[in-house]
This record gives sequence, C-alpha cells and structure tokens, in this order.
Amino acid sequence: MGEAQAACQGRPASEALAAVIAALSAQFGNRLVTSQAVREQHGHTLTWVPNQPPDAVVFPQSTEEVASIVRLCAAHVVPVIPFGTGTSLEGHVNAPFGGICVDTSLMKAVVEVHPEDLSVTVEPGLTRKALNEYLRDMGLFFPIDPGADASIGGMVSTRASGTNAVRYGTMKDNVLSLSVVTPQGEVIKTARRAKKSSTGYDLTRLYTGAEGTLGIITGITLKLSGIPEAVSAGICPFPSVRAACDAVIMTIQSGLPVARIELLDALTVRACNNHAKLGLPETPLLLVEFHGTDAGVKEQAERFGEIAAEFAGGPFEWATKLEDRTKLWQARHDVYWAQLTLRPGSTPISTDVCVPISRLADCVEETARDAEEHHILAPIVGHVGDGNFHCGVLLDMNDPDEVAAAREFCERMVLRALDMDGTCSGEHGVGQGKMKYLLQEHGAATLHIMAQIKKALDPLNIMNPGKVVAWET
Amino acid sequence: MGEAQAACQGRPASEALAAVIAALSAQFGNRLVTSQAVREQHGHTLTWVPNQPPDAVVFPQSTEEVASIVRLCAAHVVPVIPFGTGTSLEGHVNAPFGGICVDTSLMKAVVEVHPEDLSVTVEPGLTRKALNEYLRDMGLFFPIDPGADASIGGMVSTRASGTNAVRYGTMKDNVLSLSVVTPQGEVIKTARRAKKSSTGYDLTRLYTGAEGTLGIITGITLKLSGIPEAVSAGICPFPSVRAACDAVIMTIQSGLPVARIELLDALTVRACNNHAKLGLPETPLLLVEFHGTDAGVKEQAERFGEIAAEFAGGPFEWATKLEDRTKLWQARHDVYWAQLTLRPGSTPISTDVCVPISRLADCVEETARDAEEHHILAPIVGHVGDGNFHCGVLLDMNDPDEVAAAREFCERMVLRALDMDGTCSGEHGVGQGKMKYLLQEHGAATLHIMAQIKKALDPLNIMNPGKVVAWET
Repeated sequence: MGEAQAACQGRPASEALAAVIAALSAQFGNRLVTSQAVREQHGHTLTWVPNQPPDAVVFPQSTEEVASIVRLCAAHVVPVIPFGTGTSLEGHVNAPFGGICVDTSLMKAVVEVHPEDLSVTVEPGLTRKALNEYLRDMGLFFPIDPGADASIGGMVSTRASGTNAVRYGTMKDNVLSLSVVTPQGEVIKTARRAKKSSTGYDLTRLYTGAEGTLGIITGITLKLSGIPEAVSAGICPFPSVRAACDAVIMTIQSGLPVARIELLDALTVRACNNHAKLGLPETPLLLVEFHGTDAGVKEQAERFGEIAAEFAGGPFEWATKLEDRTKLWQARHDVYWAQLTLRPGSTPISTDVCVPISRLADCVEETARDAEEHHILAPIVGHVGDGNFHCGVLLDMNDPDEVAAAREFCERMVLRALDMDGTCSGEHGVGQGKMKYLLQEHGAATLHIMAQIKKALDPLNIMNPGKVVAWET
Repeated sequence: MGEAQAACQGRPASEALAAVIAALSAQFGNRLVTSQAVREQHGHTLTWVPNQPPDAVVFPQSTEEVASIVRLCAAHVVPVIPFGTGTSLEGHVNAPFGGICVDTSLMKAVVEVHPEDLSVTVEPGLTRKALNEYLRDMGLFFPIDPGADASIGGMVSTRASGTNAVRYGTMKDNVLSLSVVTPQGEVIKTARRAKKSSTGYDLTRLYTGAEGTLGIITGITLKLSGIPEAVSAGICPFPSVRAACDAVIMTIQSGLPVARIELLDALTVRACNNHAKLGLPETPLLLVEFHGTDAGVKEQAERFGEIAAEFAGGPFEWATKLEDRTKLWQARHDVYWAQLTLRPGSTPISTDVCVPISRLADCVEETARDAEEHHILAPIVGHVGDGNFHCGVLLDMNDPDEVAAAREFCERMVLRALDMDGTCSGEHGVGQGKMKYLLQEHGAATLHIMAQIKKALDPLNIMNPGKVVAWET
C-alpha cells in the first residue's frame, strides 16, 4: 500500500471483497453473515428505492471491533455501511456499491449514567425505548421520539427528531459527545462531557446527521431530561388546516412551552378512527401535550384552549390521566398502520418536508390539494410546532403508473417546500432518496463544501458511499 | 496563478501585502485604514496575549465587498482577520502574521424579521443590544447574553453563550442559517430558514465557533424568543459554594425552567457591594431569574426557595419589579468593573472553564483554594446551571512575577477542568490563548480531524491563521 489508493467509486474488485470477507469470517465467526436473506434485510429501506444488499453483514461487539473492521475495509477499499435498526426512510442503509454492513445491534450497553449531570453514555445499537426503560426508575428520560423504536446511533446519524422536538429539540441539541471510528479506523471522541464548550470545530454536530458517511458512531453521550411532574394531553378539532396552523403559530409565539403539538388532517383522523375506534370528529385535529408542574400544565392547557378558540378551534378536551393520554398518543404513533386502513393492501411511502412555520398552512393545504387533484391518497401528519410534516402516500407498488404519479407528487412536495425557504427533509434525512434535491436546496457552492469535507475525512470514499453528497460534487 | 500556491505560514511577502493594500485603498478609499492607532485597536484583546496588529483595517458595507476583499487576499496569500467589536478574550482578533482585518461594524442592518417564525436575519456587525432594541416593540427578543455588547457575527464565531444559556441554549442552538464568505471568496448559505433540517452536513454548526478560521460570516438568521409575560428574579445566600452548587443541581434535575442561575462567590459579592452599594451578605450567592406566566414564575420561585432551604440556603428574596431586577442584574453585568474595586489599578484577566455540573462544586472550591494559597485575587462568577464559571484574575501587569503566577494559576484551572471531563473554555473560545490545551482536551486524532477540515476548506491558510488549530497539526 505504498502509493495512494484510488477512491471507491463503484463495486470493489472481487478479490478485495473476498479478502475482506475471509478475514472478517476468521475474526468474527458466526457474527459474519453472508446469507441472502440477512443481506437483503440489511439493504431494506422503507421506501421505493430498490433493495441493494451489502455483500456481508458483521455484528461487532465493541468499538475496537468496529475499528478493526474499518481498518480492514480501508486497506482493501471496500465500502462500510453502518446499520442500526433499519427504520430509516430514504435508502440510508442500501449498499449501491456492495461492501460490508456493520450492524450495531449487539452494541447496546448503557455505558454510564450521570443522573446529577442529566447525561448518559450509550452504545449505538441501544434503542430509544430500551434506554427509556432503563432510565425510568431514575426519574429521567430521553425525550427524542421519532416514532420508530430506532437505535440511538441511527438517530444521531439521521439527525432524528419527532413529536417532542418542539420542546426538547432534535438530536443535534441532545448529543453532548460522540465516539466515532474514522474512515481510517481510528477512534476519536468529539467532546468532553461538559454541557457546553467553545473549543474548536463542532465535530459533534458534524457527525450528527452525516448518515455514516464520515465515520461510524460507536458511543453517544446524550443529554437527559427529568420526567415531568405532570403531563397533560389533549385534542382539539379545527375547521381547517389553516386555522389549526394559525393556532400553532400563536401558541409558539406566546411562548407556551408545549411539549408536543401534532397536526392530523381529516384523512388521517379517519384512518385513526378506523384503526383504533376512536370516534374522533373527522376534521383537522391538533394533538397537544404539556409538561410541567400540576399547576403549570393546567395553566398551559387553559391558555391553549383560549388560543384555539380564537381560531375557531375546539372544544379542546384534555386528559391528564395516563390511560387517556396513552390511547391518544398510541393512535398518533400507530398512524403509519392506521393509514393503511384507508387502502388495505397498499404500500405506504412516508416522506417529509419542513418549512418556516409561517408557510406551513400554505404548504400543507397545497399539498393536500395536489393529492386530491391527482387522485393520490396521501394522509398528512405533522410536527407542526417545527413546521415539519409528513405525507404517507398509499400506493400499489405493482402499478408503474401509480408509482410514477406518486413520485411526481412527492417531488412537487419537495419543490413546494424549497420554494417556501424550507428543506427537502426535516427529519428523515437524505440517504439515496433525496440526494437529487440537495443542489437546489443548498446551491452548488455549499454542496461543494460538504463534498470537500467528505473527501478530506474519507479520501477513499468507503464510508456509506453513494449517500448524502455525490463523490463527483 | 497557474500553479498551486503555498499556504500562508508566516508574514506574507511585503510586495504581496503592498499589492493588496493598494488595491483595497483604490476600492475602499477612506474605508481602508492603516494608521497605527486603528491597527493596534483592532489587534487589541482583553487578555495578556501581546497585541499583534493587522497591516490594515478595511470596513466593508456588504457581503459582496467582503467577498471581493477575500478574493484579493486569496490571490496574494494574505491573511484575513474578521473583526466584530473586539470584546473576545483569548486573542481571537490578533494578527500574528499580519494581514487585513475585516471590521464588520458598518454591516449592522436588520435584513428581515419574520415575527411569525420567531426569526430574524441580520448582518454580522449588529450588536445584540441594538438587535434587542429593534425587536422590543414586536414582543420578541434574542436571548443570548454574553455580558459584553458583542456583535452577532462575533457571537456566532466564538459560540458565545452567557447568563441565559441554561434556558435558551448557546449560539449553536440559536442560529438557523449563516451566509459565509469562503476562503476562496465565494458566498454560501448554510441552510434554509426552516426550523430544522436533516439534509447534509451541519455547516451552520461547523462555522459557529470556528472563530473565523473557515470563512467570514456575513449574514445570520437567528431564532428569537417571545418576551416572557412575567419575569421574576431573586437572590439567595448560601453558607458555601458547595451548598449553592448542590441547590443548582437539584434545581436543574427537578426540571425547573430557570432562565438564569448565576453564582457569585463571597469575593465577588464584596466587589459588587463596593461598586454598587448593594449591602448584600458577603457569602456565596445565587442570582436567579424565572420567565413565564405570572402564576408560573411565582410557582417556580417558590419551588426554588424550597430547594435552596434544603441546602441551608436562604432567605430567598425575589423581586418581580423591573427596577429591582435591573439593579440586581446590573450588578452581575458590571462584575468586571466591580471586581476592579478589590484592587484598584489592577488589570483583570478573565478566563473560563466548564465542567459536568456534578463536578462544579469541586472545581470552584479547588480553584478558590488554589487562588488563596498562591495569594492571587481571583473572584469567581459562574453560569452554574451549565457548569461554567469564570475567574477574573486581578493583577499588576507590570510585575512579571505576578503575571507568571497568574498564568500558572489559570493553567491549573484549565487542567483541573480537563481532569473532571470538562473543557478548557465553556464560552470564551480558543483564539491564541487556549490553543495549547486543545491537544489535551481533544486528543491528537480529533485535533487532526479539525486540521483536515481547516486544510480542506482553507488550503491557503489565510482565514484568521494561527487560531484554533495549528496548521502543522
């Protein structure tokens, strides 16, 4: 390896791949899997991007094992694709050039908890639900909730957020420090455990959302929150999406520290009624939740009710009882399954955009109108406090015309959001699915800077190649 | 310029410099200044790093002018040093290799406000006080308050924070998007105006805290907050620094959304009494502030009083009247001047560290003991909700023994913080003053990654060279 190696820009030579797989097999035994089923499962993405399985899947148990895998792959210029739970939505874990999938599911330890500091260090394969189980008795929780029971490593890598983000922020706001295996197989730590620092480039945020293209995250120190003393949740119907959005804007503007504020359009409400027999009025609804003291959540709920009434919303019914809240949020969380009741047998393709909140009503209304005009079934739910919403397009994947129409619909949704100074993804990420929009969203010069960073840190292009930024950018 | 130019690693050739100054003089007329007084003022830093003035200071009025300056300097490999208000504390604006200081003070426009989105776009030279003046009538404010009336551009570049950070976060949490002139003189935008996005590398955070070493920030879109309906502030004495810190930990753990929680040690309280005739008890004090509704702040203040009492603190006296609050916070803000009363004629050198909050009492106590043992006058104030505190070392800069002892004291403070998994600067930044600690804080591999990024984005090393990461790293 005396001279500089060429960067990976396609499938590696079969000898290189064979050498890597042989070495991994020797080192990992049955923790190295090459069966077609397992490979396909690891290329699986909940999207219409075709499955591109890796050549092998390896299940490391430590940072040092991950580093040794990466060093081996670097020596042979073989791609490395990090894998958490495979719940990402834009082809993040596909292996367009083949290579080795590093499945972190065996790395799921809670490494250390510091309750006084409200921080915890975990391995990347731990899921958010398992983490919250672990923390519950300490009166602490990790608030980021993207819906799926994703791995913490995957949530960092996709800069996940979800229903609680309006109050608690996204992953970028809740990661204190990362351990990362670099594309050269070195192990680095991005920061100390102090709550803030101004010493050097913010590598923590650089790796957060990099989708595994700059290294593999093998340790995460997270900020935690205290489980609130009181929680109240409620539901409020509105005559229109616009009225609901206006109420959201007013709620945020008045500084009401709402913990969750979710929009369900009439179609989604119908789906929830189908799925969970909720008997909700089939108009646009806001689902809200408040965290605080007993008196605090009561006051917040009352204020919210007043604001809703100003925009012809209501009645606002609120529930402080855990079982009522659970039922409500279960319906929200099950929305993916609920939406399927609108068209049994269809495949839901979930896509998201995010716009400045002042444009949210426009963007949601135009998107709903577009769906109607094109006879596309596309129920909408949104983390509206952040200006972020999702369409779950229900389609027959075997009908090429339907697929083509749905793709065009999703593309129009992205372009609409970009037109409103928004982003092509608020929380799902880029993966393969949205790479083509990055030029329009960021511009050539900004994309070039991202590519310069990629090339500087991963000169062989082995880390999850073919994602986020194109090598030739 | 056919062949690749060598990176700047010292003073540029005098012909290169002369060519740049002549061209700038032709373009900018009297907005290009080379007088010694102005040059020295622009190298001035509130620290013991010696003044290293730039060769000239230019006052651009637009992003395009900044870009043209940078393109010119790039063509001649002449350093470019961005300048806001010069209130940074670690030699950030010094020009060790000479070059052109880009003073952004004429770029102070509010470009656009979006009250519904709680966002504003400003030019970098606008100061935070001027911004808040502008916003007041809209019921909005920008919460980050580092004490000095710093420029927004400088605050972004140093990843500033201050008293409100415990509730509102630091600059990294409050910047939505940046316009940056790259070291090649191109203008890029790091993000759309949506509240969140997961599309590509987080360049917004990369430039935030980069101290001008990766480009010049020429436009900033900030998150704003609603001016709270009610504010209450109070003051609470404690028998010891440890008791005060324990009360802080409990306050944060119980999720009390305190807006500010500041520790003043007994020495600082004495200084404030001297300065503002406050008549406060000369023991460690916590200064706290709550934001919310009338009922909310009352409840918060009561809770805090109960927590304080658990740690032998109190009585907690609180003030909802603006004039009482103003007096209290004025004393906190004037602490730099107040501390001078402890030793008239001395020079205060302010330094900061940040540790996990569980180690705060240890770190503050050991630092105070160290000062006492070495007969150093070093009053302590801290943004203790974040584990961040400042020492203002009062010394006679003409006494080399005193200066040497103070430097050793500051170094021990840094090493103590690093030993506790803390950082060598919570909010002042690296500049020249703290570069030497980055290796120990981050490790060689992490520092190497920072250097790779610097080299990839600024291959000529013209952007604020000699700061943050050394070129040879």
